[in-house]
Amino acid sequence: MSYRAEIIAVGTELLLGNVANTDAQFLSEQLASVGVDVLYHTAVGDNPTRLTEVIAIARRRADLLIFTGGLGPTYDDLTKETVCRAFGVELTFHPEIVEEIRQYLNTVFGAEAPACDSQQAWLPEGCTVLHNAVGTAPGCIFEKDGVTVVMLPGVPRECRYLTERGLIPWLRQKHQGVILSHDLRLFGLREPLVQEKLADLMDEAVNPSLAPYAKTGEVMLRLTAKADTAERCEELMAPLFWDVKTRLGDYLYGVDVDSLEQRVLQLLRERGLTLSAAESCTGGLIAKRITDLPGASAAFLGGVVSYTNGVKAHVLGVPEALLEEYGAVSAPVALAMAQGVRRITGSDLAVSVTGVAGPDKDDRGNEVGTVFIGLAAPDDTAVRQLALGTGRDRIRTLAAHYAFDMLRRYLTDLPIY
Amino acid sequence: MSYRAEIIAVGTELLLGNVANTDAQFLSEQLASVGVDVLYHTAVGDNPTRLTEVIAIARRRADLLIFTGGLGPTYDDLTKETVCRAFGVELTFHPEIVEEIRQYLNTVFGAEAPACDSQQAWLPEGCTVLHNAVGTAPGCIFEKDGVTVVMLPGVPRECRYLTERGLIPWLRQKHQGVILSHDLRLFGLREPLVQEKLADLMDEAVNPSLAPYAKTGEVMLRLTAKADTAERCEELMAPLFWDVKTRLGDYLYGVDVDSLEQRVLQLLRERGLTLSAAESCTGGLIAKRITDLPGASAAFLGGVVSYTNGVKAHVLGVPEALLEEYGAVSAPVALAMAQGVRRITGSDLAVSVTGVAGPDKDDRGNEVGTVFIGLAAPDDTAVRQLALGTGRDRIRTLAAHYAFDMLRRYLTDLPIY
Repeated sequence: MSYRAEIIAVGTELLLGNVANTDAQFLSEQLASVGVDVLYHTAVGDNPTRLTEVIAIARRRADLLIFTGGLGPTYDDLTKETVCRAFGVELTFHPEIVEEIRQYLNTVFGAEAPACDSQQAWLPEGCTVLHNAVGTAPGCIFEKDGVTVVMLPGVPRECRYLTERGLIPWLRQKHQGVILSHDLRLFGLREPLVQEKLADLMDEAVNPSLAPYAKTGEVMLRLTAKADTAERCEELMAPLFWDVKTRLGDYLYGVDVDSLEQRVLQLLRERGLTLSAAESCTGGLIAKRITDLPGASAAFLGGVVSYTNGVKAHVLGVPEALLEEYGAVSAPVALAMAQGVRRITGSDLAVSVTGVAGPDKDDRGNEVGTVFIGLAAPDDTAVRQLALGTGRDRIRTLAAHYAFDMLRRYLTDLPIY
Repeated sequence: MSYRAEIIAVGTELLLGNVANTDAQFLSEQLASVGVDVLYHTAVGDNPTRLTEVIAIARRRADLLIFTGGLGPTYDDLTKETVCRAFGVELTFHPEIVEEIRQYLNTVFGAEAPACDSQQAWLPEGCTVLHNAVGTAPGCIFEKDGVTVVMLPGVPRECRYLTERGLIPWLRQKHQGVILSHDLRLFGLREPLVQEKLADLMDEAVNPSLAPYAKTGEVMLRLTAKADTAERCEELMAPLFWDVKTRLGDYLYGVDVDSLEQRVLQLLRERGLTLSAAESCTGGLIAKRITDLPGASAAFLGGVVSYTNGVKAHVLGVPEALLEEYGAVSAPVALAMAQGVRRITGSDLAVSVTGVAGPDKDDRGNEVGTVFIGLAAPDDTAVRQLALGTGRDRIRTLAAHYAFDMLRRYLTDLPIY
């Protein structure tokens, strides 16, 4: 059974930009994991005429329609009525749902529980009910005229709950086989160069498939295989994986990891080493990114954000003579910052960043985008100079990427750059 | 001129759930601010047949089609060709765009700039070019058969840039009259409570209108008026603005500012005061957020990320006896951290955060979400204890919000909480 799906969000708040359609992203990712091809996302307002037209279009081009939103008890919640009218399906009353909702409201609100609105207990005739333990709107699935229709509440927490507990298990039962994927993460090669190196593989690859995803300064490649078993999926992926890996060399920094900082934290923990950071232009971004990760405290001791020369000199101990002679944005100062934060925190490794994030040049005439990354280790020190172009956020993001990449390279015994 | 708009995102990565369609949300919000009604969002993959069908449907039900994504130089970037074919518009070559792209690449990559791919210099005949100073793909606008077609790159930074600098000014020119809005930003009141306080105003308000936008821990209210002149818009908004302001009291932290940190930076600069930060569970997030703002160096001196007791004691000078007696997550330690970072950086004000971001309780049994915020000022010190619930990212974001709010309250002579 292979579905062609359309996800239809109902809600004027989406069209006003009040909220992002995160349900569509979540559902798409979940559906991909069970081999359902999502071909369209649509969002439409709380308007029965336009919703009816959207349904007419969707049932011509897809055979699995998933509606999110508009299942609540208020006057503008019209999904159920409109969908059922379009498919010629009656709504029937489910007394057991009234009881469920009443119990839910009692648990959440106690003595102050509002009266249960029994409108939510009307569901399409013959449907599979998706019971909602985290809200009042149940979901449902019915099949009519070769089309499978799913309705889910729009509140992200409820949509997730019913997807994970109701829809995905239901689809797994229908589906024969397994889909597996691996994410390969690269740093230091821009997407067009990745495309150039892998163009022939991307064009040819069907099962497994190979697709690139670009982020600021990074590229991710996703390898996906479909087969009867997980083992067979891995077998299908192995030769392509090997080929891609060989072509990418040490630009490939990790497989099935989320970020450079996650890889660095992994390596630090494997090697039992600790880290600190001294940041000028990144202003805390390196510390923030590594402490975003649960378990960071096992390896990251802390750092100093030295946004002024005073803090560089008095907290980090950067010699004032260096600051005067070379200026704050210089290789000697980057190195002294890394050595300074390593000394005061007692960490094994330390990384430092000093540079010009803009919008203006610094007082020594360094261009916006000039960045120095320093590394201090027990046996080694290094400084790298970068010209990162323009855009304050971009420069800061890339500078942090390069700092983590320098650590990653040091920790895997690669040339630092 | 009143448009009925459809936003069409092109990109298989959306249908796989790899990214959320944040462009659609951003565009919807921007379009609402100039009085354009968005009726549909659609997302479709990098597939010319399906995209062509989507265009055929869209031009029947909308008269402003805004495409995002698929304008890059790679083989799966097919938006321009497919849209132009559907509308019977030729692509023409713009040599000046090649020059712009070359300059952009030189600025960003310096000597290592890749060759410019001139495919991006082909644009629809007679279009208005939206010049892209933050990437290589220009946007464009053309009108054909009563439909206005806009194409924007999908990279959120580029989409935003071209929307703000190109599309919105272009739409304002088309529009008769003026639309003005003011954003009121609140902290400390949850959205349902805001709704409760303002329900009657929101229901009644048409011109000016009043709409809420929720973010993590914050609420923004947008007041929008349409009239012949800007002065008339302001006149229309004044009574409602006053009423809302009175009802919200000091939960209202700013008008037409982007964030709490921006308001704090504004206040610091107005008062000629400097700031530093000592961060434990926020791990650099406060420093990162304030240094995201251009001009932060006028007031922010720097900070210390003290992720371990060692750094708290040796860098910030928190007495070991306090750490032993009360534990790192405690009011006395929060206070000593703020005082310590104020002393070593020489700042006028200092803020500190120590808490349990999770996933686990700390070794003293403090629950996840327990957070202490400290403030040290020349004439005052304060500590506030918070219970922020669960979710590592959420706790860190809220803790930073509360720290900035404490500073905001101090700097505007309000009770600190």
